Amino acid sequence: MEWLDSVKWDRDGLVPAIAQERGSDDVLMLAWMNRDALAETARRGEAVYWSRSRGRLWHKGEESGHTQTVHEIRLDCDGDVVLLRVTQHGHDPSIACHTGRHSCFYRRLDGDRWDAVEPVLKDPERIYK
Amino acid sequence: MEWLDSVKWDRDGLVPAIAQERGSDDVLMLAWMNRDALAETARRGEAVYWSRSRGRLWHKGEESGHTQTVHEIRLDCDGDVVLLRVTQHGHDPSIACHTGRHSCFYRRLDGDRWDAVEPVLKDPERIYK
Repeated sequence: MEWLDSVKWDRDGLVPAIAQERGSDDVLMLAWMNRDALAETARRGEAVYWSRSRGRLWHKGEESGHTQTVHEIRLDCDGDVVLLRVTQHGHDPSIACHTGRHSCFYRRLDGDRWDAVEPVLKDPERIYK
Repeated sequence: MEWLDSVKWDRDGLVPAIAQERGSDDVLMLAWMNRDALAETARRGEAVYWSRSRGRLWHKGEESGHTQTVHEIRLDCDGDVVLLRVTQHGHDPSIACHTGRHSCFYRRLDGDRWDAVEPVLKDPERIYK
């Protein structure tokens, strides 16, 4: 598939993929994709990432139920970063983070320390039973 | 500085940094930061990245004038991705991309091809004189 050849994969065969929520425009998370993950994401219309820790394809929400419908896939000027416009499913308000928070970017720099500024919406032990 | 030790730098000493525009909430770009770049960004309140192609600190806008005021710095759950909330300066409407476009994510997947869906707001030859 030619469109996949336009992507500049890094030396590990990966690119960063940003998930931005449609509606709120919140940046929910950044994960990684290899060629198969991006192809699967486009085919299914649901986010499939490459889990670097597990070394395998990771259909986001496969354990948590917190899947992501992908409405749009964008590529940046250098061809080495992907941006997804998603609907985050499985909880209302939406949870993208494995800590049970809405967004993975819940720590904000305040002077010389990181403050957690977003609440846990659901106990992770109840997400990953 | 202890807060910098909370960041999980990759094997090259870098983390991806997403710049999101305050107001529009548009994701403008993703660039990379090393420890010095993040420290400088926090100190100045302006985005300073690590240019992987040039192998040096890159004060965004140093050539183009398209600087970024940084209102907020966030860190994700794994500590290996940074999110900046910025005001993009130097042109109205704002230009973050070296191609003269608002956002670097101007290519959208349409079936099996990438379509450029954002206009060039200023000729790059006029940006980088």
